[in-house]
Amino acid sequence: MIEPPPPDGGLPLPINGDTRVYAIIGDPIGQVGSPKVFNTLFRENGVPATLVPLHVTPDGLNDALGGLRACRNIDGVIVTVPHKVAVSKLIDRLGDAGRRIGAVNAIRREADGALFGDNFDGKGCVIGLQREGHTVSGKPTLIIGAGGAGAAVAHAFADEGASPITIFDIDGQRAEALAASVRAARPEIDASTGPADPAGCAVVVNCSPLGMHPDDSFPLDPISLSQDMLVVDVILKPRISRFLEAAAERGCATQPGYRMLDGQAEAIARFFGVIE
Amino acid sequence: MIEPPPPDGGLPLPINGDTRVYAIIGDPIGQVGSPKVFNTLFRENGVPATLVPLHVTPDGLNDALGGLRACRNIDGVIVTVPHKVAVSKLIDRLGDAGRRIGAVNAIRREADGALFGDNFDGKGCVIGLQREGHTVSGKPTLIIGAGGAGAAVAHAFADEGASPITIFDIDGQRAEALAASVRAARPEIDASTGPADPAGCAVVVNCSPLGMHPDDSFPLDPISLSQDMLVVDVILKPRISRFLEAAAERGCATQPGYRMLDGQAEAIARFFGVIE
Repeated sequence: MIEPPPPDGGLPLPINGDTRVYAIIGDPIGQVGSPKVFNTLFRENGVPATLVPLHVTPDGLNDALGGLRACRNIDGVIVTVPHKVAVSKLIDRLGDAGRRIGAVNAIRREADGALFGDNFDGKGCVIGLQREGHTVSGKPTLIIGAGGAGAAVAHAFADEGASPITIFDIDGQRAEALAASVRAARPEIDASTGPADPAGCAVVVNCSPLGMHPDDSFPLDPISLSQDMLVVDVILKPRISRFLEAAAERGCATQPGYRMLDGQAEAIARFFGVIE
Repeated sequence: MIEPPPPDGGLPLPINGDTRVYAIIGDPIGQVGSPKVFNTLFRENGVPATLVPLHVTPDGLNDALGGLRACRNIDGVIVTVPHKVAVSKLIDRLGDAGRRIGAVNAIRREADGALFGDNFDGKGCVIGLQREGHTVSGKPTLIIGAGGAGAAVAHAFADEGASPITIFDIDGQRAEALAASVRAARPEIDASTGPADPAGCAVVVNCSPLGMHPDDSFPLDPISLSQDMLVVDVILKPRISRFLEAAAERGCATQPGYRMLDGQAEAIARFFGVIE
């Protein structure tokens, strides 16, 4: 299990010619937390590897991927905004979640040299919840937002057996497309679209960007939340969203976005094969 | 001035999203010393950067360079065997030494995004000698071997005013071509070919690979060395060559190859702009 790194984290083992290399690609890159998390992990687990940030703009993505292929000691790459969808079309193999979501956030080099990518955004959310003792199996769930985060969470929750899953998006067609995709992947799950109303739900997940700006409205009216609900927000900044604060005031259990990131790091580290 | 790293060296500062990235490309890569030297240097000088080894085979060099171009926070790349000549043809600008030698061992990204490369092999040898209080200006010098190392040393010695410079190679044409190239670059230097005979020389430099294998013959007969000569060997393994041992027994001052590497690291760190 990966804990958040200590404030002085980010140190790998001493680097030499045999050190294996991992990277995270994104644009911008300064804000990414993975170098700190993974280098701390490598050091603590005695893994002779390092993870470096690489600033790649969309026009350079193709060349960057070609370069990563050509560097034979680069064993894996974490993919962040805005490359998750584009990278899914440039690699050789896609895992289940990556194919269903149409986006990848991690790639590894397989034994035959092929690049295999998958998506751990939703899995990270589930792992984050499990660590706090929450399960989603059999729980009626409302997902607000059917973009990349919404798709990742909906599919991961469906994989865990959350049901029924209700999806709301201000773009009704986008919500319906995601619901259909979940039903196609998991016919046993009751996935459909509906209003941003949590009545009857045990879990509410905000996967919309609402809350990143101080003057954003809430994803749904907090007054409709009841204290037996678990409320999750994928937003990373602010660390605790106003929506989660309001949910906590209503007596709800809550999970902020950074827990999802921690869970994601664990899932990706396992995918990379650097932890058991 | 860069000292050899301590045995536990190779640690950069903690790595985060803002860390600048440097790399060394080569094939093989495990043996390279630069990650240890440069990460130690970055940490000791408070430079928020890291240098990682990248294993690039000749067939992947083009793609690797394209990738390095596309990663905007990669500020510089050290180039080692077997890529020094090929890289000199793939970059945008060449420094003086790089152009004369036809090989580069370091590239940096310029403010306009262009890749500028130069060669610090010979400069490293000169810096290594200077640190030990040796000068080569005005000194008659014999250089054994007119390959990449010989060319680098001949041009760097000519830049320092070593003269006359006599070059020997088992391939006489190669020796003559190098002598002509030195004369063209530095018309004031008396550079010519001659036998592997140090008589009358103050400095003797072995730039041939002789000595890397236990059953190699000497680059020249040590009995021809006299105790007022400075004898330099560029060979890195063994750390002290049999030729240098024989020279020391004859009473000569000697400089092993790793001193050249230390000097080279200093010159490249300055080229990268990470030390003054």
